[in-house]
Amino acid sequence: MFRTMFENVRSKNPLIHNITNYVTVNDCANIVIACGASPIMADDKEEVSDITTICDGLNINIGTLNSRTIESMLIAGKRANELGHPVVLDPVGAGASKLRTETALRLLDEVKFTVIRGNISEIKTLAIGTSATKGVDADVNDRINEDNLDEVTGFAKTFASKTGAVVVITGVIDIVTDGEKSFCIRNGHPMMSSVTGTGCQLSAITAAFVAANPDNVLEAAAAAVSAMGYAGEVAFGRMNDMDGNSSYRNYIIDAIYNMTPEMLEKGAKYEVR
Amino acid sequence: MFRTMFENVRSKNPLIHNITNYVTVNDCANIVIACGASPIMADDKEEVSDITTICDGLNINIGTLNSRTIESMLIAGKRANELGHPVVLDPVGAGASKLRTETALRLLDEVKFTVIRGNISEIKTLAIGTSATKGVDADVNDRINEDNLDEVTGFAKTFASKTGAVVVITGVIDIVTDGEKSFCIRNGHPMMSSVTGTGCQLSAITAAFVAANPDNVLEAAAAAVSAMGYAGEVAFGRMNDMDGNSSYRNYIIDAIYNMTPEMLEKGAKYEVR
Amino acid sequence: MFRTMFENVRSKNPLIHNITNYVTVNDCANIVIACGASPIMADDKEEVSDITTICDGLNINIGTLNSRTIESMLIAGKRANELGHPVVLDPVGAGASKLRTETALRLLDEVKFTVIRGNISEIKTLAIGTSATKGVDADVNDRINEDNLDEVTGFAKTFASKTGAVVVITGVIDIVTDGEKSFCIRNGHPMMSSVTGTGCQLSAITAAFVAANPDNVLEAAAAAVSAMGYAGEVAFGRMNDMDGNSSYRNYIIDAIYNMTPEMLEKGAKYEVR
Repeated sequence: MFRTMFENVRSKNPLIHNITNYVTVNDCANIVIACGASPIMADDKEEVSDITTICDGLNINIGTLNSRTIESMLIAGKRANELGHPVVLDPVGAGASKLRTETALRLLDEVKFTVIRGNISEIKTLAIGTSATKGVDADVNDRINEDNLDEVTGFAKTFASKTGAVVVITGVIDIVTDGEKSFCIRNGHPMMSSVTGTGCQLSAITAAFVAANPDNVLEAAAAAVSAMGYAGEVAFGRMNDMDGNSSYRNYIIDAIYNMTPEMLEKGAKYEVR
Repeated sequence: MFRTMFENVRSKNPLIHNITNYVTVNDCANIVIACGASPIMADDKEEVSDITTICDGLNINIGTLNSRTIESMLIAGKRANELGHPVVLDPVGAGASKLRTETALRLLDEVKFTVIRGNISEIKTLAIGTSATKGVDADVNDRINEDNLDEVTGFAKTFASKTGAVVVITGVIDIVTDGEKSFCIRNGHPMMSSVTGTGCQLSAITAAFVAANPDNVLEAAAAAVSAMGYAGEVAFGRMNDMDGNSSYRNYIIDAIYNMTPEMLEKGAKYEVR
Repeated sequence: MFRTMFENVRSKNPLIHNITNYVTVNDCANIVIACGASPIMADDKEEVSDITTICDGLNINIGTLNSRTIESMLIAGKRANELGHPVVLDPVGAGASKLRTETALRLLDEVKFTVIRGNISEIKTLAIGTSATKGVDADVNDRINEDNLDEVTGFAKTFASKTGAVVVITGVIDIVTDGEKSFCIRNGHPMMSSVTGTGCQLSAITAAFVAANPDNVLEAAAAAVSAMGYAGEVAFGRMNDMDGNSSYRNYIIDAIYNMTPEMLEKGAKYEVR
């Protein structure tokens, strides 16, 4: 099934509007291309409505938000909603500052999101208004493991039902749910957390997968999550003794570029709950 | 002849002021260094005049323009004109939003450009006010091929004559013209379009080539275009089975770094019309 | 001794707030992770106080400063001072524009810095208000060499005493001093100047080293400088004939990732004066 999701990205080549942070933006652009879509980055309030109009999907990432771009996020999000375009929210660092938490909540209030993707600390902040965070990383006490998997899945389902969005919580195990059906995905490699922005990259390609599969948002998001994790595994397999996190970053994007829908279908490790 | 153009970049080490987008800016800086020049990025209106004054050339790229940086582009462009410094315009995504189109036209109106470089859709937008675009990529119906080469060259020559700039239209075949003499350059590799910002990178090194060869702007721009395309060929030759667009991006910059003026002279594929 | 400094970074995993330029920010984030710390980038005045509060150290880099971020630098710097967090200043391009020089001086005036790191031209600008610069690179006439080493060390000591900061002047030989004791560090490779932002990266990891070693600021800063230079040596040893400055950039970060405290202890080349 993930095969079809990925084939649609490659054949439809959706154009994805990204309002994202300046830290990981280049990697987001290159991984969007690698998966078969096209990126455009634009964040000025005078143009985001135009840009979103010509695109097939929108990815909003609050990684280095500021007063100028927050306004642009709201304008673009509302315009995408009017057009029926899918919109992804990546609430980077929600919980780490009042501005981030409030902005994420305001976005949730004023824009209808198709997918919300974050680590457990970020999603908890959005859902229950509080969490421990370590900056842009999940707090150690929050992390998903086999013991709390049922509990976290239940929490994700509740938040999905409340928001009407597919909720993606990434960690050692990734959870993707629309409130009814849930995917628990066990792709990925611990070293992915040594590369800045693998979460941002995942959000960007999730927008591409969802834009190419508007009638299967849950499966499309799950396919994107699995593809990213599997790319992390493939990339790790290439590492030599001298390679570190910078080479690994290149290898992950390369792995998405070289991944075929067949390879994803075979490499995907998940269960449906 | 391209050999001499490149030798001058390496021996003169021009300092290039870039007002550019935050997506591809790091690659632009590294490729400017790779070709033998030095980059400085600065976009605040309070300093762009000072910065441009100490530089040898200016590169204006509207990739992620905003109200703050548009003003800086105008100030820097006018100051560079006063000083007689070469100025390159990269109208990224002109046609994709009203803001981009209007800003590009306003820049053209208020600043005298030495070189204007874009894809066919962007240049059509500047020249005739309308075009099809796919975000920041050329529309498929616009693309340069053997059949429309004469027509597109004629169009480029007219726009060059009108603006007084050397016009560079990049695509499968690249056209570089000052309105009288034209270079059709057949270097490059299709995979270059899988890397975000190869166009931005070309504009940045074009500023370096032109700054180092003020009396041969046409040939200098053509040499930069040929060098970039040839780097794409050399880089592709290095690719192994696991490499994708992220490694390719590194290899292109590496290829410029290792390219000698002699290698460019031998690797350049062009005809003069 | 450098071993212990590095061990503390790896064991304490300090969280480092970076207000830095958009050119080299991704490399700064990845090298902070590579050395064992965690980065967070945030530059809006509404959140920098919150962000700095949850962090262990602050790195202020004026590489692409603007009126919005200058205010944020001041707010964050003062808040870090209140909290007793270490603050690093990287005065990128001080001397290249009035705005940069004045901003750097204003930061020095209003914020107490733990470490100030720049090239000789930048530090001269801060110390004596004037210098020759070549954009963001040191002027050739200023560069540190064996002949002027005593003189430059003396100058650095005076500036350290005046500011109360550890002063780091990087070049062919690096000087690290608190005004009394000085390290002259001979690690590094000339090719490091072919990669944009190796100085920015060093400032970012210096913040991590100092945050992890609050009682040994001088030694921690010296260890960071030595680690960066040694990484440049190790990375150069990996280069093949086709590799250029882009691959080298990855290899430097990889080398920090793979460097153990033991390796640093053995690879460090310095004398204490």
